[in-house]
Amino acid sequence: MKSDLEIAQSADIKPIREIAASVGVEESVLEPYGHFKAKLPLDLIDESKVEKAKLILVTAISPTPAGEGKTTVTIGLSEGLHFEGKKTVAALREPSLGPVFGLKGGAAGGGMSQVIPMEDINLHFTGDFAAIEKANNLLAAMIDNNIQAKPEVNLGLDGRTIRWKRVMDMNDRALRQIVCGIGGKANGIPREDGFNITAASEIMAILCMSNDRKDLQRRLGDIFVGFTFDKKPIYARDLKAEGAMAALLKDAIKPNLVQTLAGVPAVIHGGPFANIAQGTNSILATKMAMSLGDYVVTEAGFGADLGAEKFFHLKCRASGLKPAAVVVVATIRALRYHGGAPLSELNEPSLSRVQEGFGNLEKHLENMKTFGVQPVVAINQFVTDTDEETEWLKSKCESLGVRCEVSEGWAKGGEGVRNVAKAVIEEAESGKSNLKMLYDVEQTVEEKIEKIATTIYGADGVDFSAKAKADLREIDKLGLSNLPVCIAKTQKSFSDDDSLRNRPSGFRITVREFEFARGAGFIIAVVGNLMRMPGLPAEPAATRITVDANGTIDGLF
Amino acid sequence: MKSDLEIAQSADIKPIREIAASVGVEESVLEPYGHFKAKLPLDLIDESKVEKAKLILVTAISPTPAGEGKTTVTIGLSEGLHFEGKKTVAALREPSLGPVFGLKGGAAGGGMSQVIPMEDINLHFTGDFAAIEKANNLLAAMIDNNIQAKPEVNLGLDGRTIRWKRVMDMNDRALRQIVCGIGGKANGIPREDGFNITAASEIMAILCMSNDRKDLQRRLGDIFVGFTFDKKPIYARDLKAEGAMAALLKDAIKPNLVQTLAGVPAVIHGGPFANIAQGTNSILATKMAMSLGDYVVTEAGFGADLGAEKFFHLKCRASGLKPAAVVVVATIRALRYHGGAPLSELNEPSLSRVQEGFGNLEKHLENMKTFGVQPVVAINQFVTDTDEETEWLKSKCESLGVRCEVSEGWAKGGEGVRNVAKAVIEEAESGKSNLKMLYDVEQTVEEKIEKIATTIYGADGVDFSAKAKADLREIDKLGLSNLPVCIAKTQKSFSDDDSLRNRPSGFRITVREFEFARGAGFIIAVVGNLMRMPGLPAEPAATRITVDANGTIDGLF
Repeated sequence: MKSDLEIAQSADIKPIREIAASVGVEESVLEPYGHFKAKLPLDLIDESKVEKAKLILVTAISPTPAGEGKTTVTIGLSEGLHFEGKKTVAALREPSLGPVFGLKGGAAGGGMSQVIPMEDINLHFTGDFAAIEKANNLLAAMIDNNIQAKPEVNLGLDGRTIRWKRVMDMNDRALRQIVCGIGGKANGIPREDGFNITAASEIMAILCMSNDRKDLQRRLGDIFVGFTFDKKPIYARDLKAEGAMAALLKDAIKPNLVQTLAGVPAVIHGGPFANIAQGTNSILATKMAMSLGDYVVTEAGFGADLGAEKFFHLKCRASGLKPAAVVVVATIRALRYHGGAPLSELNEPSLSRVQEGFGNLEKHLENMKTFGVQPVVAINQFVTDTDEETEWLKSKCESLGVRCEVSEGWAKGGEGVRNVAKAVIEEAESGKSNLKMLYDVEQTVEEKIEKIATTIYGADGVDFSAKAKADLREIDKLGLSNLPVCIAKTQKSFSDDDSLRNRPSGFRITVREFEFARGAGFIIAVVGNLMRMPGLPAEPAATRITVDANGTIDGLF
Repeated sequence: MKSDLEIAQSADIKPIREIAASVGVEESVLEPYGHFKAKLPLDLIDESKVEKAKLILVTAISPTPAGEGKTTVTIGLSEGLHFEGKKTVAALREPSLGPVFGLKGGAAGGGMSQVIPMEDINLHFTGDFAAIEKANNLLAAMIDNNIQAKPEVNLGLDGRTIRWKRVMDMNDRALRQIVCGIGGKANGIPREDGFNITAASEIMAILCMSNDRKDLQRRLGDIFVGFTFDKKPIYARDLKAEGAMAALLKDAIKPNLVQTLAGVPAVIHGGPFANIAQGTNSILATKMAMSLGDYVVTEAGFGADLGAEKFFHLKCRASGLKPAAVVVVATIRALRYHGGAPLSELNEPSLSRVQEGFGNLEKHLENMKTFGVQPVVAINQFVTDTDEETEWLKSKCESLGVRCEVSEGWAKGGEGVRNVAKAVIEEAESGKSNLKMLYDVEQTVEEKIEKIATTIYGADGVDFSAKAKADLREIDKLGLSNLPVCIAKTQKSFSDDDSLRNRPSGFRITVREFEFARGAGFIIAVVGNLMRMPGLPAEPAATRITVDANGTIDGLF
């Protein structure tokens, strides 16, 4: 069997100007990065087209530890819609370098449903992550520089209160927590600090929430840095950092164009973490894709309780976007998992476990309807699935009024996702979907979280730790209570307890603490663990990568 | 008066495919990065053309603290040669981001002698620095990961002996010295560490010393990391890091093509520090330029005692390149400085100081002849120069058999450098230059340093500190004694004492310690201070940068 990289490298890749031309973008306005990648100028965004295009969100049931193949389905569905005669553009996230050298591999789809050139997309791509990293770290350098600057320009920042961390797009646990500024007077003032991975930078979240360059620069200026010794809040604007940060992002703000294996255009842009941020591609990229295609397929990180909820409450709220249909990716494997199968038995057929585990999918489908959007179930097919399990699942979904089709994108590419595409077209064109927000930003932070927890998770209520209550007072003092909420919770359960699979009930969730991303425009309620800087495994994937004399990479996955 | 940025932004910039076509590179092989930058595939390098092309090195007298405008002269001379009918290509270094946001500004020339698009060149350009940074930091992450890995894969590295630092392309003094790995078992093993600026990474030096991809990967594997607890040396190869590092550099290894204001092609690639490394662009870029043009103008950092010496002994030795002529940039201002003018009086005309300070230039000219290469003096004109000073300097040089012309590139572009170009053509075509190495690598390290110090600096001899002697024993034990030597010394004086201007005599220099860049292929003799991570000034240049709604940058300089 060919590896993903071998499939990608042997693909009949088309010049990017041909892909652009297929959606009406002339070569003269395209900004090529080599022959197979390009940036798209922002003035190609046409709000009147955005208004008309159909946005399809791909999300998933609560995943097994291996993930359920959302990106693969998203890419396959884009091709499926294309084969069904729809002018389609995919809108995806950019992968982070960290996992490429660690354990997980890239994030450019898999099998016959990939975006290419996959090595480039998984490595530096067009430099967006590097630019975001630089903008983040310029602010950090300006903060430490100001802390030790002469009195005339010193803002009086209290180093103990600095919230802004440096970032690096690398799995590097040794940088999680550091002491910087040591070695004497010339090296600044010592303080505790640390690095996050670049995808966790607020700059990433900001880039993806921005509606234009002006909005970007305003959000950069809004970043909260820390407090002065006399408790005054300091923002990036006070350090006059936002202009230089925006300059560093002048090209990174433009969405990137590549292609799927079948030559369907894919706009790939931004990759914010799915726990502490919105976990979906940029607003500008989605609008760009909707300006170029009649159908746009996009995805949101983790299960629908996290990914779809944040997509609606954060991204749709900030942009005015509304999905025409939502695809919930399920796997027979994950249903067995929610039906009680231990990890070692996920590949063993079991109709009873699938039936038992259906509760998880059912709750996600109910949730989508609560949001006013029409779900379609795509069964991402694995070789261990049985007809019996698949047929049962299909008929169960149909009995609930939800279309359910098998997605064979991994094995067959878009041709294997045409049935899903047909169902999606039907639902999207039915006009049934009309997104509604479940809370208003003017409600209290507690009310907003309670609404999500009780309605989407099925919790009985929410508890707030003493730390969380103190944080809420600070949020109130800083005037941030009317921001929407991003909940950082495990994706493995509707609850905040990994072990409660399926559709748990009779539980409460606990908010341990709050953070906030003032520039990005949301408050982060920390319910689970926040991993912001992964580590490498004992034998990193990096040790298997080679390049030949012509620059061709091997061993990437 | 227009700023450099305003001049650059109002330039009549040509599409990069036209620039490429002017030197016979077809659009189909060009790898565009937007419309005005491109990467050149390595197979365009043609050794038979490299053999025939004339390489002109631009170096300088011992500079004043402000620098003498080597890059401006290099760019102007490239245009001057072009106007004189020679098919010319400039070969330059890439600027570092650090100074752009700090004090110094960019490094893309100045006035009417610039390379464009200057904002892009000074910011991320084509991502080479970011790729080098990632490759450097991947090795660092793999080191710290191995230090705490399970026994089966643990190499037994002694954290106290690690020589490999992380890098960031940022002026950030707070990162010079850190403690990493703190915060408990999950975060690795604590140790002292620090960051250098990316230009100071050995990866940068390696990229610029490599002759092809295979050579690059071998050099990456050769990097010395540190010792095990039982004193065994560990190299990057032992961590199996070189393949992934080479993958990260797969595009960064390709030289970049841009243009001067007058549309002369400029190959810009690599930017190693001029103190701890070779301070000149990549071997591949120089060979690329020589494959495309009949005349190639390049430069080497700091004065000729450092820049030209390293260019010859390190770069020419590793590549077989030989310059056909050397331009020594002088300024009337710098001659006044060496003639005793205090910094506050550099702009005040003084023939006697110029006459007195000529000793510095004279020694550099003698040195070039010692190397067997023919010098030409270019007087980089400033508005405060008087005819009397200029005429005296010209006739003095002529009396020594050295052509001397005024370079008006800053004010007039290449048209103002035609006289220098004529002199350069005459000397280059005379065949007088025949580079010879002043030492053989098989000599001892002490002999090699003594040769440079006595011959080039005019020192009476070299002293070695106790630390330096201990380092020499380690170098010997690691089998590195037969590498050429890179001397890290102040550029302000031939001696190791900043205050000894002009042509000092009766002095000795002291080697304080040694370092080595095994992958890059040289030993570093530390004579002065090594600044590897600059800091920001109290009011960083970053605070003045803005971007408008169209993405146009202002305030870059």
